[in-house]
Amino acid sequence: MEKIESTKNAKVKLLMELQQKSAERRRRGLFVVEGRRELEHCLEAGYEVDTVFVCPSLCGEVELPQGCRMVEVTEQVYAHIAYRGTTEGIVAEVRVRQLTLENLLSLAPSDVPLYVVLESVEKPGNLGAVLRSADAAGVTAVIVCDPLTDLYNPNLIRSSIGAIFTVPTVACSSEECIAFLKQHKVQILTAQLQDSLPYYDTPMTEATAIVMGTESTGLSNQWRQAADRHIRIPMLGRLDSLNVSVSAAILMFEAVRQRGGK
Amino acid sequence: MEKIESTKNAKVKLLMELQQKSAERRRRGLFVVEGRRELEHCLEAGYEVDTVFVCPSLCGEVELPQGCRMVEVTEQVYAHIAYRGTTEGIVAEVRVRQLTLENLLSLAPSDVPLYVVLESVEKPGNLGAVLRSADAAGVTAVIVCDPLTDLYNPNLIRSSIGAIFTVPTVACSSEECIAFLKQHKVQILTAQLQDSLPYYDTPMTEATAIVMGTESTGLSNQWRQAADRHIRIPMLGRLDSLNVSVSAAILMFEAVRQRGGK
Repeated sequence: MEKIESTKNAKVKLLMELQQKSAERRRRGLFVVEGRRELEHCLEAGYEVDTVFVCPSLCGEVELPQGCRMVEVTEQVYAHIAYRGTTEGIVAEVRVRQLTLENLLSLAPSDVPLYVVLESVEKPGNLGAVLRSADAAGVTAVIVCDPLTDLYNPNLIRSSIGAIFTVPTVACSSEECIAFLKQHKVQILTAQLQDSLPYYDTPMTEATAIVMGTESTGLSNQWRQAADRHIRIPMLGRLDSLNVSVSAAILMFEAVRQRGGK
Repeated sequence: MEKIESTKNAKVKLLMELQQKSAERRRRGLFVVEGRRELEHCLEAGYEVDTVFVCPSLCGEVELPQGCRMVEVTEQVYAHIAYRGTTEGIVAEVRVRQLTLENLLSLAPSDVPLYVVLESVEKPGNLGAVLRSADAAGVTAVIVCDPLTDLYNPNLIRSSIGAIFTVPTVACSSEECIAFLKQHKVQILTAQLQDSLPYYDTPMTEATAIVMGTESTGLSNQWRQAADRHIRIPMLGRLDSLNVSVSAAILMFEAVRQRGGK
């Protein structure tokens, strides 16, 4: 097995570029997964691993799927490539997988779908946190419209604690998403303060998409007009402010409640 | 007005110590508030401001209460003292205020109380995030039992975006808190996986305390035994993991729902 002892090694440089640059992730069709548990979730979800960098003194034994390249690195090189500052000793380059809206139709087709749609969310960490809650709430898929971040941003992967692999996630335009939801008779519930009813007075037992806007400016008119109903979380305090991932969790779990935990 | 031009000034050193050391906050009975909006919330809540450091070129005009000292600092000094890296140009030393459990009885006495109790939460940022949601849900108070962080940690203040000032918050021991809740006939709902019912099948319209444990080990036996009911959030995904502030928000807003948004 190849052993890398210098942080100036060409493979190390390419790995760092994948971590740091979304353009590089797009160009090479690869992204970076760090940590044993994250990599397990990634493999379970059927992602294709390209190259694995292991630091044996930190990582111990690993079983990896056939066909992926394994490269050994020293502790010093590992400290250089580890994004999270963990000492798990394993980092992998994994092939990007782009789900489309049409792919969603074949997921759990007997269930009544619950989609969470996020329009132009700005912070990768918030998107990751929404995915983590979406996993817990068992949503069918998260749809990210007009994204300002790519789905394989390292902050997103980290804050999702692996949910980016367990929750089907699609990136597309708002137009495409609205057309898809209308075509498949999914009711569109937009989270907004104006002209809205408390979310808990809104039925979510049929096929439903909960749509939320950016942290700063909320939803675009396009979505407000496409909505079947407008919903809001009552704000009973002084600050009028909930984190977008907290708001998303409250709305998703209302659907869980109405559906009796299914 | 005094003008500070050096980061080695004694007042600057004392301010930095308040930011960095909880022991220093305890010893001097002061903590640090940064930013115009945060300071407004703090003043509205009746906190006593001791010293305000302003950088006029960043901050513009400020109106401050009588009796507080104002010190001018240069942009260079401000960059040194600003914890959050903002450019708002205002940082204040504010007197700590310790609410007790007994103080809570005089808050909105006509309302049916809703308390959120956190046992030994480890991360100040999580505690701040819970306070932010607690403000939105209009909870009566947040009670922090056996805290591993002080309430005036700068990460806590930052992530609460001012809710540490708008939400009454008490720190005490678990014993004291349990005795208080029992004495005042507040039902105790503990969030735990074992022997529990889905939270939405549990009535929260009477006086209620929602109790949550640490991120790592959950609730202590003391709380499990003190509970009137055990509640859980159904986990429908693969990761079995919700952030503690997200869990807290889901539970608080169930009480809001059951109480009809009051």
